[in-house]
This record gives sequence, structure tokens and C-alpha cells, in this order.
Amino acid sequence: MREVRLLYGATIPGMPLLSSDLLWKIQFQAVDPIFFCEFSKGKPIILVSSLEYERARKEAKNCEAVLIKPYMDRANSRLGIDGLVEFLKEYNVGRVVVPGDMPSFITEKLRSFSFIVEIQGPETLWYPERAVKSQEEIEYISEVQKQTDRVLSEVVRKLRRAIVACDGTLIDKKGKVITAESIRDFMEVEFVKNGCLATNTIVACGDQAVDPHCYGYGPLRANLPIVMDVFPRSKKNWYWSDITRTFFKGEPILAARRMYQAVLDAQRLAMDMIHAGVNGSTIQKAVSEFFVENGYNTGIQDGTTQGFFHSVGHSVGLDIHELPMISRSPFILREGCVVTVEPGLYYLGVGGIRIEDVVVVEKDGARSLTSFPKELEDMIIP
Amino acid sequence: MREVRLLYGATIPGMPLLSSDLLWKIQFQAVDPIFFCEFSKGKPIILVSSLEYERARKEAKNCEAVLIKPYMDRANSRLGIDGLVEFLKEYNVGRVVVPGDMPSFITEKLRSFSFIVEIQGPETLWYPERAVKSQEEIEYISEVQKQTDRVLSEVVRKLRRAIVACDGTLIDKKGKVITAESIRDFMEVEFVKNGCLATNTIVACGDQAVDPHCYGYGPLRANLPIVMDVFPRSKKNWYWSDITRTFFKGEPILAARRMYQAVLDAQRLAMDMIHAGVNGSTIQKAVSEFFVENGYNTGIQDGTTQGFFHSVGHSVGLDIHELPMISRSPFILREGCVVTVEPGLYYLGVGGIRIEDVVVVEKDGARSLTSFPKELEDMIIP
Repeated sequence: MREVRLLYGATIPGMPLLSSDLLWKIQFQAVDPIFFCEFSKGKPIILVSSLEYERARKEAKNCEAVLIKPYMDRANSRLGIDGLVEFLKEYNVGRVVVPGDMPSFITEKLRSFSFIVEIQGPETLWYPERAVKSQEEIEYISEVQKQTDRVLSEVVRKLRRAIVACDGTLIDKKGKVITAESIRDFMEVEFVKNGCLATNTIVACGDQAVDPHCYGYGPLRANLPIVMDVFPRSKKNWYWSDITRTFFKGEPILAARRMYQAVLDAQRLAMDMIHAGVNGSTIQKAVSEFFVENGYNTGIQDGTTQGFFHSVGHSVGLDIHELPMISRSPFILREGCVVTVEPGLYYLGVGGIRIEDVVVVEKDGARSLTSFPKELEDMIIP
Repeated sequence: MREVRLLYGATIPGMPLLSSDLLWKIQFQAVDPIFFCEFSKGKPIILVSSLEYERARKEAKNCEAVLIKPYMDRANSRLGIDGLVEFLKEYNVGRVVVPGDMPSFITEKLRSFSFIVEIQGPETLWYPERAVKSQEEIEYISEVQKQTDRVLSEVVRKLRRAIVACDGTLIDKKGKVITAESIRDFMEVEFVKNGCLATNTIVACGDQAVDPHCYGYGPLRANLPIVMDVFPRSKKNWYWSDITRTFFKGEPILAARRMYQAVLDAQRLAMDMIHAGVNGSTIQKAVSEFFVENGYNTGIQDGTTQGFFHSVGHSVGLDIHELPMISRSPFILREGCVVTVEPGLYYLGVGGIRIEDVVVVEKDGARSLTSFPKELEDMIIP
């Protein structure tokens, strides 16, 4: 009896049941979900519909394409899963290993046919080598990162030209109020013009940003921190990048200045700790402690979580949030991992401040993929 | 012992583990996956991280937000799934019903704690009422559809201005070759400028379109069918629309003319059969038979599947491919379903021809959401 490692999913972002592991492995874009069977020896096999077969044969990497239809016919079924069962029987498979996110109807069906199914838990890397990016992958991420730098520079130019109205809102030269939505739309159009896709871009001013997942809305205001968290992906190869900067139009209040400096120092502290072999959770711990030592406590105040309460970072690649994380979970960062470093502080009355770069983990340190400035004085736009 | 219906996932398209059922139900955008527990009585509960809690409390519809952290603490775990188990115990749950695409690590964990888990099969609608669109949802889809009509009109203007080079390729006024990629990029930028998101837009000329999932590449050519399959979604509410037209720059050959007319007639036949209560599979069968009666056979020729070999249609909504389908599977179309009607014919040497509209199923017929022309003479661009 043989063992097979099974993946299932579509490989086009935006389609349901996307399997990024599969996209990473076969580098082939399938609208319809396909089954990928990896044996201990020999070429992996993908089972595909006739609609995908021709392209799959020519384009799919690291595997051999096989039509699923004859197997479905053998099972006298219209469902791919029944074709899979016939295929596994023919290949004398007894044991199937699947990732934790495998749809339950598949593991259920396999067990009903007496296959032994081993399900991996969450926080398990299906391909540990996917966490270590190749030079080509680093180049893909870097190309997207260059676009974010360019687009943020254009936003800075817009903010520079902006005028502060007597109520503190920013207006453009035509007298139109500058809103979070208008800046977001501007950035997202710029990305598409340059072959990238961005949605849910965060432009959050003042207290809005105390909720780090708030996208931001309404007029932008002078003197308050404006968090811009920008995470586009390439439409060519689907790799993501991620950057956050916190801008001010005009002088921030002293509390915001101090907070900004603390976040920047925390980011440097985290960066300095990164090297091949480090445990991400020690970085998370160090950043948390650094904030506390500097008087920035974390907890619920006025019914809202304030302070520093998210992970220091996550890997990026074909997913925007990949393992390994820099978080309380004990993940080891290996040479070639590409991770964000994004500490932040969030207090009602001051607002949110977050600074995020993407770095490549190297033997002795971290190499940043962005050159966008982040000193406080560069963030204050006159 | 109580029963709970469980959903799990993120609700932002582009995030892994997206659950469109959940997005549909709670209309709340969560980056991190959340657990949704629906009891036979009372308000459903969503278990969320502290990062989502504040917004969830204010914005999530049809449910009550509860912090998952205390339950994770009780289980002494960093994993949400362990928090869920504690929550279900507290609520005296004995039986959990999950959709077929529930990640296996969750059903596995629940069973290890002796919960009875019922997994729904594929082709099961979690919320049958999701298949029947509200007036608001039809309006959302219709708004996106209007954008596709507008953008296709602009493409037609581009093709009208195009010049045919001596080798048959299309060139613009500046002498630049018009490629599938340039038209695709043009359309996708136009969509973003108008609040929609489009990727993988098909612009496939001649034999390229014989593979209906081929996106198309390289120069467009005169006299050959050019299939444009355009499926953007709103960035505001995430609803999709879908349209296909087949254009010609200059006169098509007779075989293509005949084929076009057959596809248009098949689409009319299908449209005429649509009404509340019809079984989609009878439409699929009628279209297949219509093509055969008109001499258009389906099968593998020269190693390539040719003829008519895909479904007549699929529902659209928060997913681009939703149930019910118009396919060989026996789905009943109910009043208020929104489905595509998209027969096509594909033969090497002539190319691919597909015509697709989105219609609302009404009591006595089908109401189209597009007004874009589709008569052959309208598709031939001088």
C-alpha cells in the first residue's frame, strides 16, 4: 500500500478553495480545483478536468497532468472526488496525508473508502521549503515593493501640496477635501496601472488607526498620525509585498513624536535580532518588553485594547500572511525567509503609529527590501 | 445537548480560507478567520480575536461578537480552535454541522473531543436562500454589469480605430501592435478606476479561445473571432458580474459566421427555457442537442476537445461561480437566482465563439442585466 500527499484547490487568487501551496508547487493557474498527488517516488500527478488538461500538460511544473474524467466515469459520478477515489485505488494507495485546510468533504469521503487519512494541524508548513524564498521569489517581492515605494512617494507629494483648512481637514488645490477613500483609490489605481493589485489598503487617521484592521474613512486631518498600510501583489506572479508608514501633515504633538520614536526604536531592536536561526517568539517578547520599559503598557482602556497587541511580523510570498510568523508562536526564521517587521503603538487620543518593512533573513542579519524613508522628520510633511 | 451550525473563515476576498457564506451572512470584513456558531434558537455568535472585536461588535450583521481569547486562555492554548472547543463545551453543544469546505483540522479536532460532526457534501448550498438574490444584491450585480458594458464599449472604440497590418495583426494609430495583453490591461485599469476589480480577463483570439480557460496572449488579428470574457467584482460590496462577447475586426469567414449564429441561437434557446422552477440540466441537455442537430459535434479531435464541452451557466454573487449551475447536475433555478447563460463552440481552424449574459430568473422567464449588443453584425467592427 502506498502513501500519497494530497493537495486540492484552484490556483487562481480570487477563486474559492485557493491552495497557495499548490500554486507554489506547480506554478499553473487553474480556475477549477485540481487534485495533486505526490508519491514518495516518481513525478507527482495532477488530476484535472478536460477544460484544464491541455494547458496543464504544457504549463504545469513539477507534475504530470492526467484527465480525471475516465476515473469519474469508472465511479459513474459527476464529482471529482469520486474520480480521485478510483485513481487512488488504481495506484494502490492506502494512506493519504493532507494539509489542515483540506476541505472536510474530501477527508470524509476518503475515510468512508477506508483510506487512512492523516490531517496536519494548523501552523504546519506543508512545504517547509516554501518558507525559504528563492532568489527569483525575492526578486518578485522586491519588484512589488518598489511599486509601493513609488506610490507612497506620490502620496507624499499629494500631501505636500495639500492645504490645511481652518477645521484641520486637508484640502487639495481645488478646495476638495482629501479623504482616506480618495488616497486609497488613488493608490489602488496606481498599482493596477503598474501590474499590481491592491485592495483594502489602510489609510487611517488619528484614533481610527487604534484599530489596526480599520481601513480608514473620511477626511484626513493635520497634525495627527496617518497610518498607511499598503499591501499589493503582482498580477504576473501573484507575490505580495507589504509596507506601512505613518505620516503627519504638519507638526505632531509631543506624545505622538515620542510614540513614533519608540516604535522606530522597537523596529530597529527587532531588525537587529533577526538572523538565520532566531526564534521569532524571542523577538516578539523583546519588543513587548521594550515598549513596557518605555512606559507603553498594553491592555483594555476605556473598553478598547490599547498599546501593542499584535504580532511583530509575518512572512510574505504567495500569501500575504504566511508562516513563519514573528509572534508568540515559536517559529524559527531560516536564511531566505522574507518577513515583515511591523511593531506599532495604539492609544486613543494620540492615534496609531506603525512602521513596517519587509526584510530578507540572512545568515547574520536582516536585509530590507524597501528604501522608503522612515525617520520621524521624513514623515512630517510641511 | 445542543446542535450548532459552524462556519469558519476570513471574509475578505484575497485572504486564505475565505468563507463567502460567512461574508454573505454577517456582511463584515475580517482579515483573520473567525468562527460563526448558529444555534437553532437565538442570535448566532461569532468568536473573534481582539484585533477584530471592536469593529465586529459595531459592524457585523446577524450575530453577536464574542472575544475568543478567554476561551483560548481556558484551554491554555494560542490556537483559536482550542478556544472554539471550550466555547462549544460551555454552550453544551453535542453536534456540529459544517459545510463541505470546512478545513479538516477543525473537524478532526472537534471529533477528538467527541463532538458529533456532520459534514455536508460538495454541491450543497449552506444557505439555500443565498442562491436567491435580494433586490439589493441584484442591484449590486447590475452596477458591476453596467461597468462591463461601458468598458467593452471603449474596447470596441479602440478596435474601430485599429488598422489592419499587411500580416493581419491589428495596430493602433501610433503603429503599435494591439495585443491581448494590452486590451486586458486597459480593461482592468478601467475597472479599478471605477471601483471594480478584474483579473484574469480573457482576450483570446482565434484558436487560443478553443481552450475556454486560456487568457489569450500576443497580437490580435483581423477576421478571427476574439473572445472577451470579462468578470469584475465590486470593491465596495464584492459582488461579481460576468459577460462574454466575441468580436471580429473585419469580416469573419463563413464558418465563423455560421458558428456565431448557432451560438446565439443556442443562447436564445437557453434563455427561453429559463423560468422559476426549471431544472438546469434540462437546459444543458437542450443546448447540447441543439448543437448536434446543427452539425456541431463534440469530442476529441487532433488531441484537443472541440465542440461544446462546458456548462451553460453558473450563478454569480459573492463568488464568481456559485450554485445553482446550469449544467449536467440537476439544480432547480428559483425565482431571484442570478445566472450566466454562456453557450460556446470551439473548433481549431475557426476559433472559439462564446456569448454570455447574466440574467435574473423570474417567474415566467429570464431578465437580462446587460444591454450590450450581441447580434453578429454588431460584433463585426469595421
